[in-house]
Order: sequence, then structure tokens, then C-alpha cells
Amino acid sequence: MPAFEHTVQLRWGDFDALQHVNNVRYFDFMQDARVGLVSATGIPRSELAVVGHFVAHNEIDYIAPIAMDQSSITVRLWIAAVKGASYELGYEFIDAAGTIYAKARTVMVTVLMETQTVIRIPDDLRDAFTNFTLTEG
Amino acid sequence: MPAFEHTVQLRWGDFDALQHVNNVRYFDFMQDARVGLVSATGIPRSELAVVGHFVAHNEIDYIAPIAMDQSSITVRLWIAAVKGASYELGYEFIDAAGTIYAKARTVMVTVLMETQTVIRIPDDLRDAFTNFTLTEG
Amino acid sequence: MPAFEHTVQLRWGDFDALQHVNNVRYFDFMQDARVGLVSATGIPRSELAVVGHFVAHNEIDYIAPIAMDQSSITVRLWIAAVKGASYELGYEFIDAAGTIYAKARTVMVTVLMETQTVIRIPDDLRDAFTNFTLTEG
Amino acid sequence: MPAFEHTVQLRWGDFDALQHVNNVRYFDFMQDARVGLVSATGIPRSELAVVGHFVAHNEIDYIAPIAMDQSSITVRLWIAAVKGASYELGYEFIDAAGTIYAKARTVMVTVLMETQTVIRIPDDLRDAFTNFTLTEG
Repeated sequence: MPAFEHTVQLRWGDFDALQHVNNVRYFDFMQDARVGLVSATGIPRSELAVVGHFVAHNEIDYIAPIAMDQSSITVRLWIAAVKGASYELGYEFIDAAGTIYAKARTVMVTVLMETQTVIRIPDDLRDAFTNFTLTEG
Repeated sequence: MPAFEHTVQLRWGDFDALQHVNNVRYFDFMQDARVGLVSATGIPRSELAVVGHFVAHNEIDYIAPIAMDQSSITVRLWIAAVKGASYELGYEFIDAAGTIYAKARTVMVTVLMETQTVIRIPDDLRDAFTNFTLTEG
Repeated sequence: MPAFEHTVQLRWGDFDALQHVNNVRYFDFMQDARVGLVSATGIPRSELAVVGHFVAHNEIDYIAPIAMDQSSITVRLWIAAVKGASYELGYEFIDAAGTIYAKARTVMVTVLMETQTVIRIPDDLRDAFTNFTLTEG
Repeated sequence: MPAFEHTVQLRWGDFDALQHVNNVRYFDFMQDARVGLVSATGIPRSELAVVGHFVAHNEIDYIAPIAMDQSSITVRLWIAAVKGASYELGYEFIDAAGTIYAKARTVMVTVLMETQTVIRIPDDLRDAFTNFTLTEG
């Protein structure tokens, strides 16, 4: 199964005083890529208002800086693991030539919004995630 | 040896549509805490213009959300390891009552700015870091 | 009557690729200064949840850049005018020496949150604003 | 002559605790639209490194909020006036249906980067701007 791809339009304000995309911005891009993937599952917004997705863990390895002559960067992401009440996302930051700029990982937990307590991942979401799970070959 | 502490003044814009400090903002706070610690080493800015500090790895575990009634959050940080051309920082996000909101870790590499290549940590910086290394007891 | 003052802790990420505080960030600082002033009126949060304050107009004149050796900037602000369903704020950005970096102005409208329609400024807020109205002499 | 258009990909982080695009973000979008227009003039980057463009004045009227179901917003902009050492931009924020969300105006000054002093707009830039000047009819 192919990964989901989200291409980020870079903003002038993403670049910091060192004239590279600031290390913090990558997490904004991951956030938007996640929103894109969850939207692509087809799970209705009304369901997300009941069972929210909170970030429990974020990590990234920066491999190469993104310079000011780049106008976009693509985030490839996929569901790396699905457990009872949490799931894990893998990410790669790539350009059109396939160069990898960073690799990242997030653990999300599903939360019953009304009580703000962790809840088992709903079955329809669990099923939908299988479409974004990388498989060998 | 006590850790370095940097208290962040929260901004209204740090809070997202879920009315918590957004997960991305924590990395901004870590960045400012690092700038504070490096400044506290007494290493002159002129030296930092020659040997820069780049983020190689960032990771965080979110423990509890920061709500809109909080006006500040304190980042405790310390030098967790020093190697040839890289060093590792540990962080805890705490409030005045000592509650821990997140724990984080960053690996920094030292870079010769002129050539943008990794370079051994300068000896004066290495010495200064010993003042921010947590010790038992 | 003296103006209200809000001192902003600058962040490394406020500085852009030109190594000045980016022109956009000033509006973040104005937002936080406003939140501070409205909080200082003593109007309870529960009332703000009923009658919200929306920005209708924002403007600024940049006078001098804020450089990377500055760690904070103070926003002086005051209520410049109060009308039926809107009020106007004046701002000056100053440092400890009194140098002015920018002058700005915002028009806010009061909105009944439930219907998202403009509503007359509540009387208690109108009274409280008189404490932040600049007067001559 | 038609205006220049820059379509902004909205980010989840652009939305604030009121679940609208935050008032500050509009200035980020104007900044990126300007970068796009200046790039479209064909003026080489090397020239911009010699003569920079600094924001002297920014203003905006917010007309309607941008809600969370919108994934992009288009900024139409044009050169509204060209003087000796400054120029003025006009902007409209519109969606695909032509609804106007905000109108804005910026005054830019041209600055000799080496001395950080205001300098006359270079003739090639002045000529290029004529392609982005709105004309009647």
C-alpha cells in the first residue's frame, strides 16, 4: 500500500535567522499531514468531535536543511502501528527529486472529548487505517 | 548541580483550536530555553557565529495539556551528554507547583558555519557545559 | 491616566531571515497586550465567553527594527475611543530607554458569541475602559 | 491589468482558540503574497540582496472570518502607488466564489542593505511594477 502524501507550501516566515526552515516548523507540517491523512480516511468530522486525536509523542531526525530556494516540501506519512487506544505514524520529508530531509514519528492517542479520557480506537477508524499501512514489496 | 530554568511567557496564539497549548509550540519553548542555556555559559556571540549549533534530533512526551488559564510554563533543562561533535539536552516542562507537563530531549551538533560541516565541540564550550550537567545527590 | 503596559518576552523564532523581529509578530504582541488590558479591567472570563471581542481593523507604522540583541519589547496601549459597539486601541512599542519602535491602532467590535452578531459594549466594560483612557496633562 | 494572485494553503495552526483563522496570520499571508509578486517581476534575487524591501506600514480591515472548513484562501494584490523610495500594495482576501474576507494595504520602502538606509526604487523594479498596477476598465 502506498503512503499518504501531503505537500506543504512553504512560507517566508518558516525560515529563521539561519535562513533554513526552522526546526520547529517541521512539527507544523507533520500536524497538517496528519489532518490530511485522517480526512482521507473518510471518517466524518462529527465523529472526530466525539473522539479526538491527541499527540502523545513526537520525534524527528533532521537529515538536511531546507533552504530558501525551495517553495514546497512533501511529507510522506503512513500508519506504522495501531494498538488499543493509540496509533503510530511514520513520516519522511522529501522533495520532488526524492531527497530525504527528515524522518519523524508520532504516537497519537484517541480521547473521548466529553470526558477527556483515553478511549479505544473506534472500529471504523481502525479499518480505515489499514489503507495507510505500509506493506512490504 | 541544578538544571537551568527558562520560564516562558505564554501567548494567546500558542493555544490552538482545542484551547490547549499546541503540541508544536513546545519546540519553540525548547529552542528559547536552549538559547538561554547557551547564553548562560558565557560563550561569546562572536564564537557562536563561527561554530553554530544545529538541531539533529528532537523528541518529546506530552504528559498533560497546558490550559488557557496558565500564563507561563517553565522549562528545566540540562546537558544530558557531551560527545565529540554533538551534545544532548534533557528537558522537563513544569509549573510553579512542580507538575510535569512534558519531558523532552534534543541532540545538537556543532557546525563550522563557514563550511557548514560538523566540527568538534570547542573546549571552552565543553568546559562550560559541565556547569549544566545534572549530577546525582 | 497612565496607559497599560505589557512587556513581551521575545522568542528566537520571532526573528526572521533578515535577523529582525518579523513585521507579522508585532500583531501577536498587540494581541497579547490587548488580552492583558482586558484582563486588567477585571471583567470576568465568563462574561467574555458571552460577549467576545473581535478585531475589525489593525494598522501599524514600523519606525525602527527590533534587533537580535533585544530580549524584550514593551507595548504601551490605551483605549483611544469607545463607541456603541466598537472601541479603538492605541499602541506604542518601546524599550526600557523609551525608544519608540512602532505605533499601532486596532478597532475591536463586541460580538454576542451565541449569534456571532455585533452587540453594544456592556456597561461594566465601558466603565472599566475609562481607567485606560489617556488624558492630557 | 489584472492583479497578481497568491493562493495560501491554510494550516491547522492558523486557526486560533475561536476556531477562525487568527487575525495575525493574515499578515503572514500578505508577506507571502508580496514575495510571490516581487518574484513574478523577474527581478533577480541577487538584486534583492543589494536593495531590500522593508515593511513601513501595514493595515487591514477584516470583513468576514475564515472558518475551519476552508482549506485555502486567495490573496489578490496589486501595486497601488509607486513613489521615490516607497511603494504601496493593495490586497483583497477572497475565496473561489469571490467572497471578500478582508482588504489590506502595505507601504514598502526600498533599503540599501549594506548601509540599511532608504534608497530610490531601482528603475528595473519600477518598470516591472507597471505590470501589476490596476487600471480601470
